[in-house]
Amino acid sequence: MPQFNEAELTAAVIRSFDNTPNPRAKFLLQELVKSLHDYVSKTNLTFDEWDYAINFLTRTGHTCTDIRQEFILLSDVLGVSMLVDAVNHRDRDGATETTVLGPFYVGEHKVTAHGTDISEALDGERMYVQTRVTDLEGKPIANAPVDVWHADGDGYYDSQKPEFLTEGPVSRARFITDADGSFHFKTILPCSYPVPTDGPVGEMIKQTNRHPMRPAHIHFLVAAKGYEPLITHVFMEGDKYLDSDVVFGVKDELIAKIEKRSDATMPDGSKASAPWHLMTYEFHVKPGEGAPPAPLGTKPAKVSEPAE
Amino acid sequence: MPQFNEAELTAAVIRSFDNTPNPRAKFLLQELVKSLHDYVSKTNLTFDEWDYAINFLTRTGHTCTDIRQEFILLSDVLGVSMLVDAVNHRDRDGATETTVLGPFYVGEHKVTAHGTDISEALDGERMYVQTRVTDLEGKPIANAPVDVWHADGDGYYDSQKPEFLTEGPVSRARFITDADGSFHFKTILPCSYPVPTDGPVGEMIKQTNRHPMRPAHIHFLVAAKGYEPLITHVFMEGDKYLDSDVVFGVKDELIAKIEKRSDATMPDGSKASAPWHLMTYEFHVKPGEGAPPAPLGTKPAKVSEPAE
Repeated sequence: MPQFNEAELTAAVIRSFDNTPNPRAKFLLQELVKSLHDYVSKTNLTFDEWDYAINFLTRTGHTCTDIRQEFILLSDVLGVSMLVDAVNHRDRDGATETTVLGPFYVGEHKVTAHGTDISEALDGERMYVQTRVTDLEGKPIANAPVDVWHADGDGYYDSQKPEFLTEGPVSRARFITDADGSFHFKTILPCSYPVPTDGPVGEMIKQTNRHPMRPAHIHFLVAAKGYEPLITHVFMEGDKYLDSDVVFGVKDELIAKIEKRSDATMPDGSKASAPWHLMTYEFHVKPGEGAPPAPLGTKPAKVSEPAE
Repeated sequence: MPQFNEAELTAAVIRSFDNTPNPRAKFLLQELVKSLHDYVSKTNLTFDEWDYAINFLTRTGHTCTDIRQEFILLSDVLGVSMLVDAVNHRDRDGATETTVLGPFYVGEHKVTAHGTDISEALDGERMYVQTRVTDLEGKPIANAPVDVWHADGDGYYDSQKPEFLTEGPVSRARFITDADGSFHFKTILPCSYPVPTDGPVGEMIKQTNRHPMRPAHIHFLVAAKGYEPLITHVFMEGDKYLDSDVVFGVKDELIAKIEKRSDATMPDGSKASAPWHLMTYEFHVKPGEGAPPAPLGTKPAKVSEPAE
């Protein structure tokens, strides 16, 4: 008959997974039991705190919809998402650094002509983006599809708005690199914005005196054939949240220089009616395999107010 | 600018909680970050595994209703609930051992006369339960309310059935101890039963080749004034799952001797129409404070089939 003290209880729970057929699942579960039990023992977790945790997890689950993913947000603000990214990209060999996919990769990336203003419908300071994809030796990679997406001037992605389904994507496109590995497009200068704060994760952010802001960035997903898919952001230099991104996604080399320009024409000869910004960035991908991640879905999320 | 390797990332996430006003919350969150990050690093968690975890947690949240608590079940089958119980009851000083409250303490415990058959409506072998509540010196405790609840012959609690709301409690009552600290009642001999297996936690139980069974038991909650509330089960000796309770709740001293009897009358003089069982158990409570836990709710749960 069992008569458990703490150590015996933990050992019994670990043993209960001994017959798990999949060895990796067995390892992950037994290590999970060790970690959870170690946490409860070293913190002397009270019943009220356990209740709070059960309730927090339940509310987090209930906040998840087809398109809003509060558990991913929780993983993001606890730095777990970036750590998973880190342990899976230990050797970059000179390839561009990676960062989190984020919850707004929802599909609808239509192949778009170079030079297109992907935010034509939006107000904002114009930015000309010129980029290039090369291998680790600097050799250009042609015909690589690159998905691009970013938030609008209020900090919302198109997929967070009901118009997304009827009117289609905004600030979201796919470009195919030319013979030189290059592509260019126009958009607005992105702004820093808060992650959703109207759920349990936002409550935690507020109660711990953290801010909910992400520095301004553009998402890029480079899916060149024969190369590892590159999931990353490019951040705008000078943003005040670069040092304190709420999801810990910033890396030095992902910060692009943004030049303020007042030339009457942009590099592709198109006319500029007001001062504009020039963003230049080069992606380096490493040989490898792997499919790019599946989009999360194409249904619009509930529209919620950005905090502060 | 941050350029995180794994250790720097973890340190940055810990620092992000430095301004948490509540010192205990700060400690719990920073230790949580350490534990989670340590888990990801030591397992080299893959993106697919992280996806599986996000999906599992989301489905667990979506399985929770007003009365079904899949996160408590997850905590139970990972031994976390019993460990929280253990770290909060390190010094028993001779008091009766505690065990988990479980998800079926839903209120509706009406004061009931000693001797009542609380399962009159149910088929099953009859059992006469005689119990007594004393302090640590064996002095009887009078006027103590004791809540009692257990499953029916199919393994369901009344609160899992729609009749609960209209027809009221079955196998669920409150007794008040007499001058001798005693109370007695009749019921059916409880049986071992599976925890719900139609949700994500049940899926985990199956995939890891564990069984979902709990050995037969009756729940008791002794709430004597001036004493620590005692939340426990009493298990039926001989049950084949005593050594492998899916929630790790069994302790030696919580196993009651059950005597088979064929006397024509029970100890209180009432007539027995068939052989019956006699369960005898004594509870010892320690001086202290604390309110008994609030019932989880009184709404009926979804009815689901017990597994195997």
